[in-house]
Amino acid sequence: MTEPTDVDNDPAVTSRRRFLRESSALMGGAVLAGGLAGGQAVAATENTDNLPPNIPEWMKAPGDPMGSQLYGAPSPFEKSVVKNIPKNLPQYLSASGRTPLQDLDGIITPNGLFYERHHGGVPAIDPAQHRLMLHGLVDKPLIFTMDDIRRFPSESHIYFLECSGNPVYKKPYGKTASDLVGLVSCAEWTGVSLKLVLQEAGLQPGAKWIVAEGADAAAMTRSIPIEKCLDDAMLVYSQNGERLRPQQGYPLRLLLPGFEGNMSVKWLRRLRVAAEPTYSREETSKYTDLMPDGSAREFTFYMEAKSIITRPSGGQRLSAPGFHEISGIAWSGHGKVKRVDVSVDDGKSWQEAQLQEPVLTRALTRFRLPWHWNGQTAVIQSRAIDETGYVQPTLAELLAVRGDNHYYHNNAIWPWRIAADGEVTNANA
Amino acid sequence: MTEPTDVDNDPAVTSRRRFLRESSALMGGAVLAGGLAGGQAVAATENTDNLPPNIPEWMKAPGDPMGSQLYGAPSPFEKSVVKNIPKNLPQYLSASGRTPLQDLDGIITPNGLFYERHHGGVPAIDPAQHRLMLHGLVDKPLIFTMDDIRRFPSESHIYFLECSGNPVYKKPYGKTASDLVGLVSCAEWTGVSLKLVLQEAGLQPGAKWIVAEGADAAAMTRSIPIEKCLDDAMLVYSQNGERLRPQQGYPLRLLLPGFEGNMSVKWLRRLRVAAEPTYSREETSKYTDLMPDGSAREFTFYMEAKSIITRPSGGQRLSAPGFHEISGIAWSGHGKVKRVDVSVDDGKSWQEAQLQEPVLTRALTRFRLPWHWNGQTAVIQSRAIDETGYVQPTLAELLAVRGDNHYYHNNAIWPWRIAADGEVTNANA
Repeated sequence: MTEPTDVDNDPAVTSRRRFLRESSALMGGAVLAGGLAGGQAVAATENTDNLPPNIPEWMKAPGDPMGSQLYGAPSPFEKSVVKNIPKNLPQYLSASGRTPLQDLDGIITPNGLFYERHHGGVPAIDPAQHRLMLHGLVDKPLIFTMDDIRRFPSESHIYFLECSGNPVYKKPYGKTASDLVGLVSCAEWTGVSLKLVLQEAGLQPGAKWIVAEGADAAAMTRSIPIEKCLDDAMLVYSQNGERLRPQQGYPLRLLLPGFEGNMSVKWLRRLRVAAEPTYSREETSKYTDLMPDGSAREFTFYMEAKSIITRPSGGQRLSAPGFHEISGIAWSGHGKVKRVDVSVDDGKSWQEAQLQEPVLTRALTRFRLPWHWNGQTAVIQSRAIDETGYVQPTLAELLAVRGDNHYYHNNAIWPWRIAADGEVTNANA
Repeated sequence: MTEPTDVDNDPAVTSRRRFLRESSALMGGAVLAGGLAGGQAVAATENTDNLPPNIPEWMKAPGDPMGSQLYGAPSPFEKSVVKNIPKNLPQYLSASGRTPLQDLDGIITPNGLFYERHHGGVPAIDPAQHRLMLHGLVDKPLIFTMDDIRRFPSESHIYFLECSGNPVYKKPYGKTASDLVGLVSCAEWTGVSLKLVLQEAGLQPGAKWIVAEGADAAAMTRSIPIEKCLDDAMLVYSQNGERLRPQQGYPLRLLLPGFEGNMSVKWLRRLRVAAEPTYSREETSKYTDLMPDGSAREFTFYMEAKSIITRPSGGQRLSAPGFHEISGIAWSGHGKVKRVDVSVDDGKSWQEAQLQEPVLTRALTRFRLPWHWNGQTAVIQSRAIDETGYVQPTLAELLAVRGDNHYYHNNAIWPWRIAADGEVTNANA
């Protein structure tokens, strides 16, 4: 104990035991102006055992020694914060696990909770045995070991990654932010510029597409326009500092910032430079959008501007009327988020939310709005506007144009309903 | 299998089996100019079993199904990338675990590998029972539950955190970048502005310091000048998106960007506003710097500009002469890194490294320099210059001013020696 005894024994301390039971004075405008006030007297029944000068149990004996976890894990009290896996699927080899967005803060998704989607299970790849072949319309076909890839000049960027089926168009939409839109995450990626690797091989005239193949049991295959490959595409080996997790493509994946997630082929083993796309299963029977007139939108690469309020959101409950921060994430495959508007009156009026700096291109952007909840029923929602000026549409607007006979590219505004008892539910469910 | 058969059966594929066995043509200047060339014919003994069109073992059967890891973990092939714990210490309750910097990329440290330092073990705190008391020279003493803290307006920032004893002054310095300087890490932190919480209580005249106390068995206690508390100090509950790990102060810690790490008191349970510092054990017998003249520097808060090359670094080996990227991290407690210089000739000349954008205040900054190693013995090192113009000193310069009769604030330039066989060792060891 290093705390001075004059404080530990101060009789004034016990007389000051008060709780800020609710921050009812933390009203929106007042917060921003810095003019806060609040705090209530401690309830008579409140347990004060753990308050100074009393000593909680966990201070009375040494804690867990250094080295008990060589690779750290969350607190046991956070055991419910895990990936959100659908229950009772017929099989789990082609399935997805969602990020628990409603439990997360900031823009970085920790690697343990990054969403995953795979089509043939997660392969266990020995990096020493893994190879990437680059061939097709190139001057010099090349095969790389992981050591070869690591010797190229590297770069690091924070980008979001999102499944194109996030969220679904049809009910049930799910209860929580994770159920609805948990197939998006964000990380700092490190790897090699694909452009640099292509320059090493030399592109031949007529090279218009690159067909990428994964080394999983599904041999996940997608065609990528050469323009993207020569822009910001990366060959990635690290995520949030450490090597990719198996679920994210260890030891090597493609990363196409802003494009639908499945194009960022994981466990990457082949890049074939071609004149035409390959029309693989994943770009014909899947990952195309059947329109109301019977035509199909294909090669719908870009994930358009989207946002979601994560707090408060479905499954949560507002403890009491008063101040509540509205917080969420916004993103756009076309670049930076320029603005996020929030409505707390079922879309009648909108206020501009604060964006957490730095706002990065093709990364999640955290937005926040201070809000005083008056204890009445309310519907809250957010809409993102990206730097191209594109405005996130309503679900009705989206359905009017695209119908719902497909699974992909639903970027609609999503409202949450708050009941008088504080319960938050999916307003579209 | 979705790969078109016309490619899988292409006889040209097998004839193109070549390896980029070494990227010897990836020379520094050429890389930046984009004029790359290289690749060698595959060695006759090279195993081509895993190359297209052949199928590696891990593609022949479905992989690990979804949900086998509800909270993800690194690949078993990365099992050696763990926190670096000193061996054979007399006890591990007051000890430190280092980040394996030489194995990491980018600037974000994954939570599982974030460095840790604690003085009485890691307490297992039930967040529902945890309280923060704010008292002393305030208008209204307050006690907060974690729910209360979570109701305040939040903010997120990417900041480094570093132990003031990073690295030691005296031999042995250790072999690797982690041994030497692994008590620094960087994360995105989310929490509440301390200023906002202080405004809620109301500071009284004469409030000049805040004494912070942790709820660990050591009751870690440090005094913080009020100016820092009203600037960028935070009460933090989340790190890289998820709740703090137990080793990082779960459920609540102080965060003082740019200040020596132990002041960012973990497991925070008390803030006492005072007129004077408390002169706790950790600011008298520890965390003061004994000068050659017998005086002691006390309250040496700021971590000054520092940098280290992490690749290539001690314990690694350059596989062959030719292109190698030099990569490392730089940081300053005083703000942004303005420039990093790298020398590859034992300090005779210096080149300006490329800084990875975005360069954030009081965050790690990744720097890189393309380098052609000629296969001769070399000494490489980096020096950081921050936005105040401060230049990272040499060890000789630092020792001349401060001596080595203390443990803290060694921010010297650190050289690595590269032998003709490619082995990298600590040039000061």
